[in-house]
Amino acid sequence: MLRKHLRWTLLAASCLMTTLSLAAVGGKWTPEQLLEHDPDWLRELGLEIPASELWDIEKGGLLEAVVNVGGCSAGLLSNDGLVLTNHHCIFSILQEHSTPERNLIADGFLADGREDELYGTGARASVPHRFTDVTAEIEAAAAAAGDDLARYKAIDRKQKEMVAECEQQAFTRCQVATYDDGVLYQLVEAREFPDIRLVYAPPRAVGEFGGEVDNWMWPRHTGDFSLVRIYAGADNQPATHAGDNRPYRPRRHLPIAHQGVKDGSFVVVAGYPGKTYRSLIGAEMAERAERHFPGRAKLLRDWIEVMEAAGANDESARILLADRVKSLANRQKNARGQVAGIQRGQLLAKKQSAEQEMLAWIAKNPEHQAAADAYRELEAMVNRAAATWERDFLLGHLGQGPKALNLALDITRWAIERAHPDLERHPDYQDRHRDKQLDGQRRDQKRLHPPTESELLADFLYRLTHLPAEQQMPTVEKLLQEGKDHEQIGPLVEGLLDSSRIFDLDARLAMFEQSVDELRQRRDPLINFALDLNAEIIAIEDEQHRAEGAISRLRPTWRRALRTFLGRPVDPDANSTLRVSLAEVAGYRPRDGIWMEPQTRLGGVIEKYTGEAPFDAPQALLNAAPKAATSRWADSDLGDVPVCFLATGDTTGGNSGSPMINGKGELVGVNFDRVWENIANDFGYNPDIARNVSADVRYLLWMLETMGLPGSRALLDEMGVSAE
Amino acid sequence: MLRKHLRWTLLAASCLMTTLSLAAVGGKWTPEQLLEHDPDWLRELGLEIPASELWDIEKGGLLEAVVNVGGCSAGLLSNDGLVLTNHHCIFSILQEHSTPERNLIADGFLADGREDELYGTGARASVPHRFTDVTAEIEAAAAAAGDDLARYKAIDRKQKEMVAECEQQAFTRCQVATYDDGVLYQLVEAREFPDIRLVYAPPRAVGEFGGEVDNWMWPRHTGDFSLVRIYAGADNQPATHAGDNRPYRPRRHLPIAHQGVKDGSFVVVAGYPGKTYRSLIGAEMAERAERHFPGRAKLLRDWIEVMEAAGANDESARILLADRVKSLANRQKNARGQVAGIQRGQLLAKKQSAEQEMLAWIAKNPEHQAAADAYRELEAMVNRAAATWERDFLLGHLGQGPKALNLALDITRWAIERAHPDLERHPDYQDRHRDKQLDGQRRDQKRLHPPTESELLADFLYRLTHLPAEQQMPTVEKLLQEGKDHEQIGPLVEGLLDSSRIFDLDARLAMFEQSVDELRQRRDPLINFALDLNAEIIAIEDEQHRAEGAISRLRPTWRRALRTFLGRPVDPDANSTLRVSLAEVAGYRPRDGIWMEPQTRLGGVIEKYTGEAPFDAPQALLNAAPKAATSRWADSDLGDVPVCFLATGDTTGGNSGSPMINGKGELVGVNFDRVWENIANDFGYNPDIARNVSADVRYLLWMLETMGLPGSRALLDEMGVSAE
Repeated sequence: MLRKHLRWTLLAASCLMTTLSLAAVGGKWTPEQLLEHDPDWLRELGLEIPASELWDIEKGGLLEAVVNVGGCSAGLLSNDGLVLTNHHCIFSILQEHSTPERNLIADGFLADGREDELYGTGARASVPHRFTDVTAEIEAAAAAAGDDLARYKAIDRKQKEMVAECEQQAFTRCQVATYDDGVLYQLVEAREFPDIRLVYAPPRAVGEFGGEVDNWMWPRHTGDFSLVRIYAGADNQPATHAGDNRPYRPRRHLPIAHQGVKDGSFVVVAGYPGKTYRSLIGAEMAERAERHFPGRAKLLRDWIEVMEAAGANDESARILLADRVKSLANRQKNARGQVAGIQRGQLLAKKQSAEQEMLAWIAKNPEHQAAADAYRELEAMVNRAAATWERDFLLGHLGQGPKALNLALDITRWAIERAHPDLERHPDYQDRHRDKQLDGQRRDQKRLHPPTESELLADFLYRLTHLPAEQQMPTVEKLLQEGKDHEQIGPLVEGLLDSSRIFDLDARLAMFEQSVDELRQRRDPLINFALDLNAEIIAIEDEQHRAEGAISRLRPTWRRALRTFLGRPVDPDANSTLRVSLAEVAGYRPRDGIWMEPQTRLGGVIEKYTGEAPFDAPQALLNAAPKAATSRWADSDLGDVPVCFLATGDTTGGNSGSPMINGKGELVGVNFDRVWENIANDFGYNPDIARNVSADVRYLLWMLETMGLPGSRALLDEMGVSAE
Repeated sequence: MLRKHLRWTLLAASCLMTTLSLAAVGGKWTPEQLLEHDPDWLRELGLEIPASELWDIEKGGLLEAVVNVGGCSAGLLSNDGLVLTNHHCIFSILQEHSTPERNLIADGFLADGREDELYGTGARASVPHRFTDVTAEIEAAAAAAGDDLARYKAIDRKQKEMVAECEQQAFTRCQVATYDDGVLYQLVEAREFPDIRLVYAPPRAVGEFGGEVDNWMWPRHTGDFSLVRIYAGADNQPATHAGDNRPYRPRRHLPIAHQGVKDGSFVVVAGYPGKTYRSLIGAEMAERAERHFPGRAKLLRDWIEVMEAAGANDESARILLADRVKSLANRQKNARGQVAGIQRGQLLAKKQSAEQEMLAWIAKNPEHQAAADAYRELEAMVNRAAATWERDFLLGHLGQGPKALNLALDITRWAIERAHPDLERHPDYQDRHRDKQLDGQRRDQKRLHPPTESELLADFLYRLTHLPAEQQMPTVEKLLQEGKDHEQIGPLVEGLLDSSRIFDLDARLAMFEQSVDELRQRRDPLINFALDLNAEIIAIEDEQHRAEGAISRLRPTWRRALRTFLGRPVDPDANSTLRVSLAEVAGYRPRDGIWMEPQTRLGGVIEKYTGEAPFDAPQALLNAAPKAATSRWADSDLGDVPVCFLATGDTTGGNSGSPMINGKGELVGVNFDRVWENIANDFGYNPDIARNVSADVRYLLWMLETMGLPGSRALLDEMGVSAE
């Protein structure tokens, strides 16, 4: 196995002019896969402790200290449930406790003692504790099904049953994690702790230093870290918030490293990456690279322009639409980055050539013929999907543009689904998601600007009605029977929204409780349109579910053969389960002539400082900076306190807050971003530019110690950092 | 002397985190000063040949091969007068020979043979050949003068006499070069060759690749090179263009290096840097850093806005004003860069602390008391000049804003000066500059947009009349006696320009020949105003000349003592004479976390390529690029053909086209720019960011050999690059 690994890492290294060595290999490994790797290879990379120290299927391991806080990854740092995650992951707690007199968002927060820690309403820590392979049961259920749609439904039903049974336990959240569409199904049980309290957050000028300007960029100077504490009941089990709850006592926590990282240091990124697309075959990836992302970049650009035009001369519209514009701009930049990155990394060509190699191997090993057949069938499915590509693409973006319609679709879909038993509903409309749906209806009230909704809906309908004839939707055609031009659609949509109560939150909340019949009786034209449209959408979903049923047969067949072909573990696509990436601290060349150095300094904060957001800085930091070089947290090579570092970590969304761990199993930093050039990493690992961005833990320690905050001494002690 | 040097280089090196070693020392040395340096130190830097090979006061040396072409530096490359300089330095020859059918600007040019080389009308190569120290004669003339104004006039007169006598020789251009305001006066005689022919220029997409976007930036991918040939008469002396002229046979030329540069390579920059300000004392530098450049940045910004507003909705105005806007934007960016760079390099603080050290040394060495006195007097002069600073600042910028007034001032000044004998005139209005002045009047005709001139003049007069009372100019006050508000000045200026013939080129050329009386008879109100204003300006100039007379006493006293204090050669400020900088190829860190690598690759051209200017590229280059790595001009470390490189060269305007020479005396590249961070280099050398930008000669050779142009073989042979 060693030889395979070496060939593979040499391949990666040969793409580079620099000293990048073993660790730029990629891979979001499951904890179990760590144990499958050749121990010699792991040692060569820089892992000084045995892999079984990190994870043991029987006994657990250090990776138990990697938890989930509010959708972010996080790391336990002490025996008393202290957890490190990103600043942006605990923002809602700062919001909750901020007042005009005590602006915690601006000023940051450090609890003087445990009694001062700030409970965050709705904040939750999830600590996975049991992982059960349920592949056999799911496959048994699937095998009994007649066709692919039935297969999809059988799998869906079986998963819901398992989750429902599992969640009978108190404070337990369960999911059936699907790996590569069915190579493995794993029931993951997590304890959900609802009593989370804020211990420390830096001032916004530190935690968000650089803001949108630096987002996805390097060099970075953001102290994107915060500390919270998990509280438990007297039995150390999850308990609702109560004064006599006690700090949670975890089995394992991550000690703070005594030595910082430097260029070339081995690091492990551990966390809960959300979703990637590497198990797609070439034809599927081509659809993403050549149609989906370019189309998405253009569509979102158009909608951003509509919203920006509305806000240009109207301050209140601008405020209402601000976070939608920001979010769309983020997705749009992402889409462009995917296109550019897939091209730059020649990911498609590499994928296709790897597949040709494998198909040639299958030709010589006919016992794997089923894998080649599966591959061909996946290809054929891409071609079939092309027949309704434009329609499906538009429907897939409904949530990002015409919000009034989307709210109406949610309300009516809720009514439609509620008529079914919980286990037979679309998963998003099961009762366990009811609160989240209601929250969404409430939150969106601050994001609605009726004239803009009118424009967005008109635009959306215009696009639907100008689809090729065979892709048009009867409900839309009926609505627009008087005319399909802008001059006709515009007034029609205005009328539709004027006669609807969709912009009225109370009305929406009331509708949310109503049945389909009750909704029809309202004679709200938008609601009626949404009811009709939903019927069509559900039929389209059935076709998609049939495809998913097929994929659940095909992809596992292909992927299992790939594992045999390669003779080494194959990391499955991210699916929000715990993963580990083996990496090294390293710079990169974004383009010819520029080398991004792997570490930044506090001096760089001062260089960027303008006195105004996003490049403001607290006065105490400005005062302390000139002496930083003599601090015990300074790095002698850098001649300054380190701020952020780059590593070759294989990360994606969900890795926010991931602890960065050195070869000794000690914490060296906290991941919070990846670089722009690395966005297409979701489709393939390009060692030249696969770089994740972390805050160096020494910056956190320097902040705590130097900024003169009361309470920092006890906190440093708790983290095992003895007072100087 | 060696110890001194080491201390000095260690000081420079200690500022850097990197491997920058000996050569980041700065200094624009005169050829004579090369011989004053410690030979061991030069060898340590990387100079493998004796300094006397480069220059010998009796016998000349390799630096004779460094010449001047059309205001640019240039290097002789063959026995047959082949000269390498920048693409932008020979642009006018391309313009002259381009037609719609044969667009040499776009396509570039390579002569098939010598008979096809393209004569450039007005192009000139200047080859200095005699350097005479005339300090004693100038000082003798100065000593006889009664006061500082008389002193100024005596020096001015003496210089003019020397130049006039020197220029009696055919095809000879002479100047008395003044070093640090009089430490040394040197009569420089140059042969001026008027028969210059274009041999090779790359397509514009190569020679200007990156255009304004990349100007002053790194990474750079510009092939800013061209080849011309100097032709001479049968006697090898300058001769007017004629068919039977023969290639000039120089005594020395630069061989092409067999080995390219790499990170850390020693390089010499040789050329004719124009003007720097390092001999200024702290008080003078403070005036530049704190008043002059910030004021200039603001004033030019205002005028750019006037011009841009005029062009916003008026295409013809935009065309007329385009190159003025471009030029002002360039100066404005420069002014901002000076402010930022002086601050970044803490040049003022360093200067002041060095001066304090020297004053302390003088206090212990009273034989140098005269230098301290001179220093105090220079300081006092800065304070005195502050009394009329605002007025003098505005008058100093007359040439960059209100062009109609400036043209009128030139015409009338010409008439005023012509009444005096040639040797008594302001140097700019001596007959030897007449053609240049006339050219300027003609060229400006394409840059005049009357409504904008009206606005600019109104703005200028508004600023003058709102100066503190004691700085106001009587001529302006008289003109504006009816009112000093915008509403009054605007119409008045419009009337003034309407009644003037200043926008009529024929009228201007006629006026250019007229006397003061004849001009008065025209009753042109703008001309009359200019005549009156010129009388005032001449009186102000007299005061400035008085100050210059004083400076010619004071600065040399201070600088000579500095030479003694330092115990090593002190490089004088640039003054368009031949200078040599000792440098090394090196990257730099423009800001925390980014390392600019010292070399760029052909692959970087492809990365930047968009198909549109300024990032277009010839198809032949695009075709050849994929095979570049296997070319004999490829650099094995870079894995590609090198394009540009950075070095620690101490350069300024005028160094364009400077040959870059390795330690063996061989040509490795041609300088064409410096980086933005390095603009304030004119005030002091900051080893961290002092980087000049050169095109690698291997890029030129690859272009010639690979691009399939006929004629390249003979040219490569001529340069000693044998066919492969």
